[in-house]
Amino acid sequence: MDYPNDQAPGAPVRSGIPEHGRIPKYYAVKAKVGALVEELGEGGLLPTERDLAVRFEVSRETVRQALRELLLEGRLRRQGRGTVVAGPKLEQPLSLASYTEGVRRQGRRPGRSLISLDRFPCPDALAPEIGAARGEPVWHMERVLLADDERVGLESTYVEVARVPRLDVEFDPDSSFYAYLHDRLGIEFGDADERIETVLATPREALLIGTPPALPMLLIHRISRDTAGRPLERVRTLYRGDRFSFTAHLGRQG
Amino acid sequence: MDYPNDQAPGAPVRSGIPEHGRIPKYYAVKAKVGALVEELGEGGLLPTERDLAVRFEVSRETVRQALRELLLEGRLRRQGRGTVVAGPKLEQPLSLASYTEGVRRQGRRPGRSLISLDRFPCPDALAPEIGAARGEPVWHMERVLLADDERVGLESTYVEVARVPRLDVEFDPDSSFYAYLHDRLGIEFGDADERIETVLATPREALLIGTPPALPMLLIHRISRDTAGRPLERVRTLYRGDRFSFTAHLGRQG
Repeated sequence: MDYPNDQAPGAPVRSGIPEHGRIPKYYAVKAKVGALVEELGEGGLLPTERDLAVRFEVSRETVRQALRELLLEGRLRRQGRGTVVAGPKLEQPLSLASYTEGVRRQGRRPGRSLISLDRFPCPDALAPEIGAARGEPVWHMERVLLADDERVGLESTYVEVARVPRLDVEFDPDSSFYAYLHDRLGIEFGDADERIETVLATPREALLIGTPPALPMLLIHRISRDTAGRPLERVRTLYRGDRFSFTAHLGRQG
Repeated sequence: MDYPNDQAPGAPVRSGIPEHGRIPKYYAVKAKVGALVEELGEGGLLPTERDLAVRFEVSRETVRQALRELLLEGRLRRQGRGTVVAGPKLEQPLSLASYTEGVRRQGRRPGRSLISLDRFPCPDALAPEIGAARGEPVWHMERVLLADDERVGLESTYVEVARVPRLDVEFDPDSSFYAYLHDRLGIEFGDADERIETVLATPREALLIGTPPALPMLLIHRISRDTAGRPLERVRTLYRGDRFSFTAHLGRQG
């Protein structure tokens, strides 16, 4: 390696060691476990906390803190009672294509599991976002997103009932909502505005997605319109921060 | 409010309370402090930990855990020895426009502070990303990003020395690199590929940006090309997760 300070371009400079040179003890352990993770490769079984504490001559608490960060970052994952090296994060394109298409393109099997489907009268704040009048009935559909049966996200969709009146009887919740809109109702997506941020999972979200509490998540807010420019849906999707990254291609008008 | 369970569309359902109804104690306190944050409004001073513990009849440790999450999420921020209600996150467009332009558009004053500028021989992994041959000299420029003098991010830029030979003597590091490329060298950006993920700040990064250690950050990897399609730079930018969100407009070819 001939990068400055032996770093690859995607890695933090100097393995994250502050210029003053004082390295938190857990962080030194994290760097050593990180090297071990590279050696073991995807699926490799990590030694136990106790073994790592002995090997690195630190307390189990220090090892636990290092492992906790590597778990939150998605470099390790729990498997049964052990801890194994995780695979790379899924790369989902930021595009009008659906979750379904994005996951398939990466050779994974997409799935969705329905949590709830409710009707409620449209409140003021939502009205312009989905193009409904205040008080008009609106669907709220909440689904857990799956990739190869692993729970990876939680999606809330808000859409006017008048647009998809038979959603509750006609739509299979374990299928693509976008494919349903297109194939059954002839609705085509025209454009969308998205906003992406990082948030902590709430206890309810953590339970539904099966993540440790307070795992950093990527939250995407989407407001989309059909090809006629008419507002269509408002979506709030939470993705596991340890399992997902998002890609975008930016052009001159980016 | 007539959303299901009194929630706005951008908020988590049921304030994050799990269906089984068991709410972690700290989370109940977090919800109460969240309501107080709404009441106080931006810049409002929060009561002390001790006062909140008395008011909500919980331990100071429980209050501390609730405040910690609200700080990590950017709803609160430290000010001197107190804690105040934070302003909304900055919304930076995912576009070819520079950090400078994005921050200006939001009425903030952009700034940058140089941490290091080094030359090193181009390693294999970087070569195709910046269009340099292995061993050719490459600049690595590291800058802290500022908005109204607040440290909000950390940027590493890698670019071939042959492309910008006088970077070290000609470029003011507290200015826009993109403006420099355009105005002095006539280089126009053509397109870029970006990847966005959430990571934890390393101790060094936390120190440079002045954040609490292990704050969730948004990390953007960028590889950009000029209008002739020739690779130009590789950038790794870390943004405070509590201060930034990113927006994208997606079209049909999005």
